[in-house]
Amino acid sequence: MIKVGIFGYGNLGKGVECAVAKNKDMELVGVFTRRDPSTVKVATEGVKVYHEDSLKDMQDEIDVLILCGGSATDLPEQTPKYASMFNVVDSFDTHARIPEHFANVDEAAGKAGKTCVISCGWDPGMFSLNRLYANCILPDGVDYTFWGKGVSQGHSDAVRRIEGVKDCRQYTIPVDAALDAVRAGKQPELSTRDKHTRECFVVACEGADLEKIESEIKNMPNYFADYNTTVHFITEEEMKANHSGLPHGGNVIRTGVTGMNNENTHVIEYKLTLDSNPEFTGSVLAAYARAVVRMNKEGQTGCKTVFDIAPAYLSELSGSELRAHLL
Amino acid sequence: MIKVGIFGYGNLGKGVECAVAKNKDMELVGVFTRRDPSTVKVATEGVKVYHEDSLKDMQDEIDVLILCGGSATDLPEQTPKYASMFNVVDSFDTHARIPEHFANVDEAAGKAGKTCVISCGWDPGMFSLNRLYANCILPDGVDYTFWGKGVSQGHSDAVRRIEGVKDCRQYTIPVDAALDAVRAGKQPELSTRDKHTRECFVVACEGADLEKIESEIKNMPNYFADYNTTVHFITEEEMKANHSGLPHGGNVIRTGVTGMNNENTHVIEYKLTLDSNPEFTGSVLAAYARAVVRMNKEGQTGCKTVFDIAPAYLSELSGSELRAHLL
Repeated sequence: MIKVGIFGYGNLGKGVECAVAKNKDMELVGVFTRRDPSTVKVATEGVKVYHEDSLKDMQDEIDVLILCGGSATDLPEQTPKYASMFNVVDSFDTHARIPEHFANVDEAAGKAGKTCVISCGWDPGMFSLNRLYANCILPDGVDYTFWGKGVSQGHSDAVRRIEGVKDCRQYTIPVDAALDAVRAGKQPELSTRDKHTRECFVVACEGADLEKIESEIKNMPNYFADYNTTVHFITEEEMKANHSGLPHGGNVIRTGVTGMNNENTHVIEYKLTLDSNPEFTGSVLAAYARAVVRMNKEGQTGCKTVFDIAPAYLSELSGSELRAHLL
Repeated sequence: MIKVGIFGYGNLGKGVECAVAKNKDMELVGVFTRRDPSTVKVATEGVKVYHEDSLKDMQDEIDVLILCGGSATDLPEQTPKYASMFNVVDSFDTHARIPEHFANVDEAAGKAGKTCVISCGWDPGMFSLNRLYANCILPDGVDYTFWGKGVSQGHSDAVRRIEGVKDCRQYTIPVDAALDAVRAGKQPELSTRDKHTRECFVVACEGADLEKIESEIKNMPNYFADYNTTVHFITEEEMKANHSGLPHGGNVIRTGVTGMNNENTHVIEYKLTLDSNPEFTGSVLAAYARAVVRMNKEGQTGCKTVFDIAPAYLSELSGSELRAHLL
């Protein structure tokens, strides 16, 4: 059994917990938190909640620690710190800072003889993998990534900060016409506005100026100004009834040409349709947790990304079972 | 530069040749054939055609040999033979015999210190990879593979063997209703007939009994009897004008559930739409040719499949470039 620890028990931590329950070769050793452990109740029967401070004394009890904090401030500090004690998996997704984060984690893990994977999940993660494979197969081509339909937590939060807004759920929606043009191999040039629309469901405070809220949303730089945005005002009850999930997904598409005269066009598409973004992300992290434990046993230490990990390491099955059943 | 040899110059060999031309770090050293080399003309300027017998004397001139023969009789003999002299890539696709083929190639390559990848292409190959990743992420789920719309060469050949048939092109077509049910996460149980239809375009010999041909096709065991099949009789001119390409493709879909009460459903879909089956297959083989050369330099020898090869090995780019641009 692979003994798993979860650090951080928000949406992602809960998603990892669900994933561990689905993997028969994994056992959840404990959930670790910076909060008072007595205030945290986990879903898995018999699993204890510990304060973060206990981690340093539990190195022999945990094969891999899955870090479920945020990319802004938690992971840049936590991943290198715990890479010196544990095999570690994180979902660091601040693209611009990945090189720096990789270097920090690689140094800590290398010194300690631990194995880590950073920036794991679906984007970065499975989407990155599909970009890489498709680029290598079709060197003469163009990449497209579409997100949605799904809830963007960052955009929802941005709307919540507007005066008079009590709650918001923002959906990112790919534009069908753009998807169709890409899938037809036309290699269109697409602006930000061409690719996605944004739809906001807003609960306003009593007496708030709805027109002003709508205008502030639609003109918000970076978040909304470059998109066609629709705003719906709804009641708190409607929000709870119809928008409590965290669905997401998207498409990675590469189209490219082959042939001595570029006469043949090919389309490679990878598509995710997810009822729960954090549970799917947690499921990816769990599969890679298995990989880092196995690679560590083989002496492959340091920081890895999904690019560096042979697919077979993700599976419980042996090489010969994989060749017989999945090849 | 990676020095590539191609053995076998049918559709697949020509597809690999096109792929090598698209990869700036690859150079085609020669095309090898069992035919009289003077009868073979290749598309790449300046590239020589050699008889197979020359291969044994050209071990220092070739970094990787891509075998483009058939799975029935060529590859079972050729891949182990040449794995003792070269790093080798093949597209062996007789599923039932993969374990035996793997063992033979692994023994030869291991003794010689060479690196080989077998059963590479899109199915087996990219489809296998996507089955593996999706199975590891969603352990509680169901797999579906659809093929087409595309030309099945085996089925076309089977029809050509019927008396009175001059030529045939057979298309395998996925059933939209089945695809829709799968994508909706309904995990339907699908029979052979539910999943695909078959469409045959047949050129008949003069005076042939068309009704008899149609009936023989539709009732042919294994090939057609379990499918809804449509037969169209066309002229040779129509065949040449409308059915000279070798398009193919398909979908690998896994749907699965997560959550403590299986309350969330996820759909992972990988879809290929290919104008030219052999050119796309050749493009996959070329990418894996790069991987085996690099793995061999690192001392990772023996027989591999796509499951055993970390994605980064397929790319010309360095680890830091990949992390910066594709992660």
